[in-house]
Amino acid sequence: MDYLLTDRVKPVEVWPKMTVNELVHQMKGAGVFMGGNLAKAVDIYERMVNDGAYIFLSLAGALTPAGMRKIILTLIKKKLVNAIVSTGANLVHDTMEALGGSFYQGSPYLDDSQLYDAKIDRIYDILVTEKDFTEKFDNPILEIYADIDRSLKGKVISINELLIEIAKRLPTSDCIIKACYEHGVKLFCPTIADSVFGLQMAIYNRLHNGNLRVDAFEDLQEMWDIRERNERVGAVVLGGGVPKNYVFQSFFFSNKGLDYVIQITLDRPETGGLSGAPPHEAVSWGKVKPDANKVVVVCEVTIALPIIVAALLERLDKK
Amino acid sequence: MDYLLTDRVKPVEVWPKMTVNELVHQMKGAGVFMGGNLAKAVDIYERMVNDGAYIFLSLAGALTPAGMRKIILTLIKKKLVNAIVSTGANLVHDTMEALGGSFYQGSPYLDDSQLYDAKIDRIYDILVTEKDFTEKFDNPILEIYADIDRSLKGKVISINELLIEIAKRLPTSDCIIKACYEHGVKLFCPTIADSVFGLQMAIYNRLHNGNLRVDAFEDLQEMWDIRERNERVGAVVLGGGVPKNYVFQSFFFSNKGLDYVIQITLDRPETGGLSGAPPHEAVSWGKVKPDANKVVVVCEVTIALPIIVAALLERLDKK
Amino acid sequence: MDYLLTDRVKPVEVWPKMTVNELVHQMKGAGVFMGGNLAKAVDIYERMVNDGAYIFLSLAGALTPAGMRKIILTLIKKKLVNAIVSTGANLVHDTMEALGGSFYQGSPYLDDSQLYDAKIDRIYDILVTEKDFTEKFDNPILEIYADIDRSLKGKVISINELLIEIAKRLPTSDCIIKACYEHGVKLFCPTIADSVFGLQMAIYNRLHNGNLRVDAFEDLQEMWDIRERNERVGAVVLGGGVPKNYVFQSFFFSNKGLDYVIQITLDRPETGGLSGAPPHEAVSWGKVKPDANKVVVVCEVTIALPIIVAALLERLDKK
Amino acid sequence: MDYLLTDRVKPVEVWPKMTVNELVHQMKGAGVFMGGNLAKAVDIYERMVNDGAYIFLSLAGALTPAGMRKIILTLIKKKLVNAIVSTGANLVHDTMEALGGSFYQGSPYLDDSQLYDAKIDRIYDILVTEKDFTEKFDNPILEIYADIDRSLKGKVISINELLIEIAKRLPTSDCIIKACYEHGVKLFCPTIADSVFGLQMAIYNRLHNGNLRVDAFEDLQEMWDIRERNERVGAVVLGGGVPKNYVFQSFFFSNKGLDYVIQITLDRPETGGLSGAPPHEAVSWGKVKPDANKVVVVCEVTIALPIIVAALLERLDKK
Repeated sequence: MDYLLTDRVKPVEVWPKMTVNELVHQMKGAGVFMGGNLAKAVDIYERMVNDGAYIFLSLAGALTPAGMRKIILTLIKKKLVNAIVSTGANLVHDTMEALGGSFYQGSPYLDDSQLYDAKIDRIYDILVTEKDFTEKFDNPILEIYADIDRSLKGKVISINELLIEIAKRLPTSDCIIKACYEHGVKLFCPTIADSVFGLQMAIYNRLHNGNLRVDAFEDLQEMWDIRERNERVGAVVLGGGVPKNYVFQSFFFSNKGLDYVIQITLDRPETGGLSGAPPHEAVSWGKVKPDANKVVVVCEVTIALPIIVAALLERLDKK
Repeated sequence: MDYLLTDRVKPVEVWPKMTVNELVHQMKGAGVFMGGNLAKAVDIYERMVNDGAYIFLSLAGALTPAGMRKIILTLIKKKLVNAIVSTGANLVHDTMEALGGSFYQGSPYLDDSQLYDAKIDRIYDILVTEKDFTEKFDNPILEIYADIDRSLKGKVISINELLIEIAKRLPTSDCIIKACYEHGVKLFCPTIADSVFGLQMAIYNRLHNGNLRVDAFEDLQEMWDIRERNERVGAVVLGGGVPKNYVFQSFFFSNKGLDYVIQITLDRPETGGLSGAPPHEAVSWGKVKPDANKVVVVCEVTIALPIIVAALLERLDKK
Repeated sequence: MDYLLTDRVKPVEVWPKMTVNELVHQMKGAGVFMGGNLAKAVDIYERMVNDGAYIFLSLAGALTPAGMRKIILTLIKKKLVNAIVSTGANLVHDTMEALGGSFYQGSPYLDDSQLYDAKIDRIYDILVTEKDFTEKFDNPILEIYADIDRSLKGKVISINELLIEIAKRLPTSDCIIKACYEHGVKLFCPTIADSVFGLQMAIYNRLHNGNLRVDAFEDLQEMWDIRERNERVGAVVLGGGVPKNYVFQSFFFSNKGLDYVIQITLDRPETGGLSGAPPHEAVSWGKVKPDANKVVVVCEVTIALPIIVAALLERLDKK
Repeated sequence: MDYLLTDRVKPVEVWPKMTVNELVHQMKGAGVFMGGNLAKAVDIYERMVNDGAYIFLSLAGALTPAGMRKIILTLIKKKLVNAIVSTGANLVHDTMEALGGSFYQGSPYLDDSQLYDAKIDRIYDILVTEKDFTEKFDNPILEIYADIDRSLKGKVISINELLIEIAKRLPTSDCIIKACYEHGVKLFCPTIADSVFGLQMAIYNRLHNGNLRVDAFEDLQEMWDIRERNERVGAVVLGGGVPKNYVFQSFFFSNKGLDYVIQITLDRPETGGLSGAPPHEAVSWGKVKPDANKVVVVCEVTIALPIIVAALLERLDKK
């Protein structure tokens, strides 16, 4: 098995003022453990882009509160992603921030009872106020819902269409929903009911005599078309959950597995949950091609994502 | 701080033929680490039942393939749960098994490319055949969809109503969907589109000229009513994800947090994701009451759940 | 690959008053995820015992404070283990408790600065007082060291011999050090310097003009003899670390890998650390035989160990 | 509690050719989750250096095979560390590579039985040959042991002194043992017996009639002096285990806790093991000062360490 002994682990070297991409190249030289996988993730992303693949980005976890929204917006604006599948919460948080709300640096050791009394919500070490939720999200979104309702006149729309209607009414381009709309990036949010978008929808329909009707399954038709139309498809998976599965399961429509998978997660495979399942498990299902470029970076997203995108931008030299 | 030094860790003792509940009582005597938390989980479940609380069970991860379905059915049939919020996959797998499909013991080290060629799908160390998916789920469910479509005549229904329509047409009571229907347990599946139920719905509507319309938000009205009507509410959270959040976020409708939370997960809090977030974080949001009975058991569900339910049954002496 | 589709996942059933071993048999019927691995661990332990294998038990983590000491003593007294390799801390904690010290149930959320002021030490959710450490361990062990020093007259001994000398001077049999001595179980503690045994040794030799000399490597000769003399060897690994490696590396002396490995840990393999490395990685080194009975139970020890030993005792019917 | 709402999460921005330190500054602006903690780690390291603190570096896990050895050598040579506490394995691997051995990039999915037959050892996704171990480590170290034995004439030495004797006889400065010796960095290896240094020592003493005697506890005297002599002390903890505890427990000699702690690990706190225990738990023991600068970066070391050191070098402008 001497053929295995070809690529030596070249120890990582660091120096002052090295660029992020130079660091990633050093990690590639070592090529092992998670530093090696992080470097491989950059290679795969670069290849996806150069191959002209259709790129899905799946978002789970509190990515926008955690300061990842500018990077996601960069990917949208630079056409480094073609479709996004997000949890509802990420879109809620992102929209709230775009409408003037703030997230604050806190600590996981604060007294949650006191926070409750002070009407401050905690996401691990991030803080956000009830006031911002009310003023910068709930109230504006109720108005937007009312306006959409008036324009639809009872027509049942898809979740994607709802997001487009919202996008049209948002006053700023500095948010995922509107940036997707403006840059032609498809936005899917199959779990939208499981977020404040959903809670406000329930309030709108019950307390404001609303009549908004949104189909839970309709976006799958759009997903079907995407998979049929695109030969080479990749997925950048941040954190697992429904957004990951929603991208993976869509292979079913085209019977073509993903060609590229970058998965960033701290979840374990041993629970059998989809979030921690490695892409090669998905090969058995046909969700991922046997010879796909695939990697799992076991790393929290706020470390891995900035490195990957910074290195990618340097390579693509897009400014 | 001598008041802290009151409960000594009493070393766990074991003996032949000890019952599961005796084991749990030993773990309670020690009272620390995850054995202590597992014992606390049983105490909380017992208290919830005795207090007459409204009990939510949230299901994420591959619980039904992993052999947890009979335990879940036991909880339904013995009225130890009032409402279930599930991922789509768990309902798909459970229904398929009820309709004659099988899951097999495998290994996480099998060759996934070979499995793909053999049309065998893998979930960690569980195997299932494409043939069973097709024959024991896809085909029957397409027929069921057609029958529902005929009966609805274009009416838009909620996901819960769709599940009830499916339940009525399932030939066996030995599955979660039908057992919930027959025993008056509410069943929510906000992510149903993200499962084979969704894929087949897309196929039905496109290839069979179907016209099934299911509202993505409507079930929130039902959830609203539940939260308003019930004073004391508990949650048994298996694995996180959307099902967990869907239960937690519903506090919003009643402005009353959960009184009891049992959370079983291997996910970490450090990612900021909801799955690994401890219930005391949810206190800051108002999702959980400050003085709620709450515990996190950091343990894979197939170990923790059978122990909790076996001990609970012994305590409640329900046979 | 139909040969893979032989063992169906049989859903776990639970009932009132079921014994722990009955529960384990149910988990075996399902046979997947960690419940399946836990059941496999009991099978392997039973087989090791019935095959008359030489059984190593490696102890890392705060097992004795966490209430596992009676179970470990049961394994020693019932001859279900032949040699133990422990961290120093586990022996310190165990000896302190045997000499009258106590551990208390606390919480991971206490204020550590306040605990420091109150001279209370915390191990996750376990509390122990500085007073107990001083009175129930430091002072007695200094006297024991002085007595050993007088008897040795400058002779350099091994760590195992030091533990035997300590055992002879301990007033109670209810501790690991003395129980091993009395029941002919070999006790190794290669990291003894990294514990209060070490700190007190430093104090004894410096402040009390001590002259105790203990060889760091000598016990490897004993380990060598054990591996040469025993054909079939198994390891029960609780928590990884040096104790695990010390058992595994000893294959080197006999060129015979382990025949049985039960590993219980929450550590991940992706860091490349030995604690999370699965036994099959050790096969490449020769530390474990290719056809060994081996299993990893990803589970916290205070849940897994009581279950395994309770089920084992029921099977062996030793009372 | 409005005082909590002062530091807004500033979304991370990335750009082509940004330096690693610029990236770390962006992560600091966000300041949350693990990116925020990584940035904090760099700040703490910088402060430690500028404050003239005595800096311990603890090494556990397969760091040198994983390509971290040049970075560790950089820290030694640039005086960014004063003492190292290592597992035996890291020193074995590092010395072997310095003497001409190689590590190779592999995969965690290789067949370990085949690797065993081919005499290739695996560390997660790293490969190393038995031949290299024999020729580049075992044989040279046996000769070095013989030479040391001749020079000592029966004198019992400490582990640190043994490492110094080895350092004197190593032909290259490009390894941790010799670099520490040449740059005045103290090197401790309390678990040396638990490594090939130990196995070869057993072989030397048994098969070559060796008489090397090394005291297991003696280095604690040196550690005592270090703690007494140094007012401000910090620890950079890579991976936990004995090396971490050995640094932490030494507070005992001076009754002064650590002033700075940077801990990089993927281990969990819930097991109660020391590796995953956060530094604030150590505050209760007095091992860490209540007001110490401390951070845990939940991240695999091959990602976190290169970033921290690259950013540190840029800040210190040492080339």
